[in-house]
Amino acid sequence: MQSQHFSLPIRVYYQDTDAGGVVYHSTHLNFMERARYEWLRSLGFDVHELINTHKLQFMVRSIEIEYFRPAILDDLLHINVNVIDMGRSRISIAQEIQRDQTRLVNATVHVVCVSTESLRPIRIPPHLREKIETPT
Amino acid sequence: MQSQHFSLPIRVYYQDTDAGGVVYHSTHLNFMERARYEWLRSLGFDVHELINTHKLQFMVRSIEIEYFRPAILDDLLHINVNVIDMGRSRISIAQEIQRDQTRLVNATVHVVCVSTESLRPIRIPPHLREKIETPT
Amino acid sequence: MQSQHFSLPIRVYYQDTDAGGVVYHSTHLNFMERARYEWLRSLGFDVHELINTHKLQFMVRSIEIEYFRPAILDDLLHINVNVIDMGRSRISIAQEIQRDQTRLVNATVHVVCVSTESLRPIRIPPHLREKIETPT
Amino acid sequence: MQSQHFSLPIRVYYQDTDAGGVVYHSTHLNFMERARYEWLRSLGFDVHELINTHKLQFMVRSIEIEYFRPAILDDLLHINVNVIDMGRSRISIAQEIQRDQTRLVNATVHVVCVSTESLRPIRIPPHLREKIETPT
Repeated sequence: MQSQHFSLPIRVYYQDTDAGGVVYHSTHLNFMERARYEWLRSLGFDVHELINTHKLQFMVRSIEIEYFRPAILDDLLHINVNVIDMGRSRISIAQEIQRDQTRLVNATVHVVCVSTESLRPIRIPPHLREKIETPT
Repeated sequence: MQSQHFSLPIRVYYQDTDAGGVVYHSTHLNFMERARYEWLRSLGFDVHELINTHKLQFMVRSIEIEYFRPAILDDLLHINVNVIDMGRSRISIAQEIQRDQTRLVNATVHVVCVSTESLRPIRIPPHLREKIETPT
Repeated sequence: MQSQHFSLPIRVYYQDTDAGGVVYHSTHLNFMERARYEWLRSLGFDVHELINTHKLQFMVRSIEIEYFRPAILDDLLHINVNVIDMGRSRISIAQEIQRDQTRLVNATVHVVCVSTESLRPIRIPPHLREKIETPT
Repeated sequence: MQSQHFSLPIRVYYQDTDAGGVVYHSTHLNFMERARYEWLRSLGFDVHELINTHKLQFMVRSIEIEYFRPAILDDLLHINVNVIDMGRSRISIAQEIQRDQTRLVNATVHVVCVSTESLRPIRIPPHLREKIETPT
């Protein structure tokens, strides 16, 4: 499929780091969540619309994440979002965290579109699917 | 009123610290929340019962917190809970974080009992009030 | 003293909320930290310069915080920074969290300028003091 | 190799959940870190000894994690630790999060033993290696 490119800049604060002097490993997943929701917003789908109009939310089903180099306090990171595959209710997203041109962290995040009521998988709304498939 | 005493031991992990080498300041409030809920459980009121049977939750209304000495990685902290005042729907709780006999952090936390539906203040259930007022 | 005004917009994501459906109470302190560091950056003092050139960091000494109304998922909040008092090594900062023109949270945060090595209070560098005192 | 079994009970508080009503996905990694450090402590290696005596720390190199069922507020979870492979400086650990006998989350966490100064990989101390290899 056509790949999508989106990138969110995030500054590293004390709250994101640990006593090892680096960004705590699970915090990178928080950064990635922020980038995914800003990417959805950039396609015209904010969270309130997803929940209230479409009665859906995205749940993380699985993640593979690799840490190459540490991020540190005050770094300006760029969190990339790149859709690599999409099923009926599932989206696979490659996410990369960079500082300047250096790759620090790589992940593949598999999310599933679920009903806000039953938490069971439902179809990705056609309008959203279309937006995702359209090259930017 | 009769004071209540309750203390919860909490170990400090990397996730609780920041690049300054100490426990991040807002993390102490998380430790204090854990201690308040374990104190309620020790009185026979777990969160599920509060929500499902009594349709209530406690919301934090205000906090005064003072940091005297830093807590660091691997410290074994004790988080104390001591009710200092109780109104119709409000409880004021003194909380202290200690390592050995040294006081690290002091706070007064004011919580309000609210309806899970309206989020408006409701009466503290008499049975809970009684438990809180009974000296241990 | 001349008051300073600075405001940082922050979007609320799932990671900032809790099962009560609102922003978790201690997360507001994290939002406030982000705003304080962006305010320092706006004055020309980034964290690396503070640590490496001036060998100093700011530690939170005490906080009084009041929660008026809940913030929820997807809210766009504005976190204000307003210096209200400054001593030799201490700064008192009024911080407010707003959504549109509605005040959600108010805090006074007292920070102390400490040596990165001894963690003991040191003088606020004159150049930084001057920047803080100059009305914007 | 001989497998090791270790399990840490963890209670779910508001701070661990999100507005979807479930434990936030990255919080499960925090639970897993707590279990790994308690497992090391159970082998006689606390963090202070690792850092001060052995000048080492463990850094997460990669993680594969799968979410099967949500954990919710007030759940009592069990976080399991099971070493599945060990190299010169690397340990691969299977971690499972259970509620009663139900598996909620599965992960494989690959950590590397690094020097606290250079952050470069160093040998796992023989005494620790031996402890890990000895069936409990």
